[in-house]
Amino acid sequence: MTANAQYRLAARPVGLPKPTDWQYTEEPVAEPGDGQFLVQNQYLSLDPAMRGWMNAGKSYLPPVGIGEVMRAMAVGTVVSSKHHGFAEGDVVQGVFGVQKYAISDGTGVSTVDTSLAPAPVHLGTLGSSGFTAYFGLLDIGKPEPGQTVVVSAAAGAVGSIAGQIAKIKGCRAIGIAGGPEKCELLVSQFGFDAAIDYKAGDLRGQLKQHAPDGVDVFFDNVGGEILEAVLARLARGARVIISGAVSQYNTETGARGPANYMQLLVRRASMTGFVVFDYAARYPEATADLAAWLRDGRITSRETIVDGGITAFPETLLGLFAGKNTGKLILAV
Amino acid sequence: MTANAQYRLAARPVGLPKPTDWQYTEEPVAEPGDGQFLVQNQYLSLDPAMRGWMNAGKSYLPPVGIGEVMRAMAVGTVVSSKHHGFAEGDVVQGVFGVQKYAISDGTGVSTVDTSLAPAPVHLGTLGSSGFTAYFGLLDIGKPEPGQTVVVSAAAGAVGSIAGQIAKIKGCRAIGIAGGPEKCELLVSQFGFDAAIDYKAGDLRGQLKQHAPDGVDVFFDNVGGEILEAVLARLARGARVIISGAVSQYNTETGARGPANYMQLLVRRASMTGFVVFDYAARYPEATADLAAWLRDGRITSRETIVDGGITAFPETLLGLFAGKNTGKLILAV
Repeated sequence: MTANAQYRLAARPVGLPKPTDWQYTEEPVAEPGDGQFLVQNQYLSLDPAMRGWMNAGKSYLPPVGIGEVMRAMAVGTVVSSKHHGFAEGDVVQGVFGVQKYAISDGTGVSTVDTSLAPAPVHLGTLGSSGFTAYFGLLDIGKPEPGQTVVVSAAAGAVGSIAGQIAKIKGCRAIGIAGGPEKCELLVSQFGFDAAIDYKAGDLRGQLKQHAPDGVDVFFDNVGGEILEAVLARLARGARVIISGAVSQYNTETGARGPANYMQLLVRRASMTGFVVFDYAARYPEATADLAAWLRDGRITSRETIVDGGITAFPETLLGLFAGKNTGKLILAV
Repeated sequence: MTANAQYRLAARPVGLPKPTDWQYTEEPVAEPGDGQFLVQNQYLSLDPAMRGWMNAGKSYLPPVGIGEVMRAMAVGTVVSSKHHGFAEGDVVQGVFGVQKYAISDGTGVSTVDTSLAPAPVHLGTLGSSGFTAYFGLLDIGKPEPGQTVVVSAAAGAVGSIAGQIAKIKGCRAIGIAGGPEKCELLVSQFGFDAAIDYKAGDLRGQLKQHAPDGVDVFFDNVGGEILEAVLARLARGARVIISGAVSQYNTETGARGPANYMQLLVRRASMTGFVVFDYAARYPEATADLAAWLRDGRITSRETIVDGGITAFPETLLGLFAGKNTGKLILAV
């Protein structure tokens, strides 16, 4: 008997998830029924959004229930199948959860073309992170050549791609990240025109220096102080893309809204939220563009792969909120 | 010699304007030079935005300088003219300031057609208040027939018109106002489908009752708690129009942003600011529609005209922030 190892949600966290918020379980690997297949997970996608899924209350997805296997995107291999669309040996991607094995009926599952890029890239640049950057920046941000695009969490999976797409579209790209190493990377690896280290202080002064004519598009993954600083420097008609708010997900003192949101009026600007899953029908379009840019070397994809096995999950997730990764954070199972 | 009476800004207010923030001055009425004319003000427009103009710092208009006559829209009569475009006796509208007489070179001044509606209406429904409602609701809000439109400060000059335009466009209109009298007025006079009294408490419960399927368009003049309550009830793809934030203008504890702004992401919604002056080239279009709707009885225009003369200005302005008016607040000079 092969054992499946899993992390289940044990309690709804207050602030950062504690070890006791998780329950590690083992159970026999299930057999796929008719119309199902069994996947052995190889790579788990670790995303800031996971923190939101752990909260009670309505959001764009239902919360993970107490006692349920934690929700996660993953890439794995089909090890047995009673589904006509998926065969043993297929490399697939889907919401397979924080576990070694998953049973699936194929809903939301796609086959991964590893000739395009290695499997982990399909969780990042060619997966929901890249799609988030692509549709958020292009559909919501509508950047025009010559405009100034600012990206927060710019060394992360989404931000690093958003900045590079901005450059491809002829914009000036400014990245905000924490610490000199990430900032160096933004410029040298990801091709941003300038990097702002929010940990170095005087965020508003740095923004003024690098965006003297204002910010036309802000791709925000962070919220909080960073959002306020950029709102204070918007150009007229600016578009603020609300992609995430990682600074707010683990707050214990109550979330904070941008106190200067009336800059939207002063600058005739908009702030728009989106959820990448709404663009599922257009994923092929994004994949085609992103894969071509990768192939042509116009985009650099970076992954931080933690080779810790499933038991490293709780700690690795905390590393995400501490900003330990650059590019996509992935746990090798 | 005729004396001009004026209110000048003496100090930048902290919180609500105090009597000592104003300086009352008298000086001889000036003679118009070549290309100028002299206006005798009859009606001053009192607007929430005036509070913002009193603050230091960049906004969509430069602040009123200390010692300068307070900025105000007004309707008056030309009493002498050396300007080829304006003749003695013309009824005109412009930014004539809080004073009895103003010298103008015609910049931003338009002639008022009193056959269309009485002069005070040209400061409200056929003036910047009506235009704000018209362009904000239609251009930013893009309401569709059958959708639910919520308006805050709905008994005010802008809100009452926004709600009535929403009805004309086939929407369900819900107004938020303070107190049972205003709420009664919303339904009986302005034709809203429902009214919510924010002073009666349980704002969120009332919203849930009257907008069970969510809010498609929110025309916000208020900010603060009311903005948060409506964000919590947005329908998918909702548009939030940031027209003003009167709850925040006199705060002494620092402005407050909507803590739950991430509802924009959850609901795939947008929040967009605008300034009516940007639509100046399209005012004739708005005037034509609004005048036709007034004539056909599809819009009710309401003005609260305070007959106190120029010295009643400081107190009348405070009444605006206390919500004493319904419809447009006007001071008869």
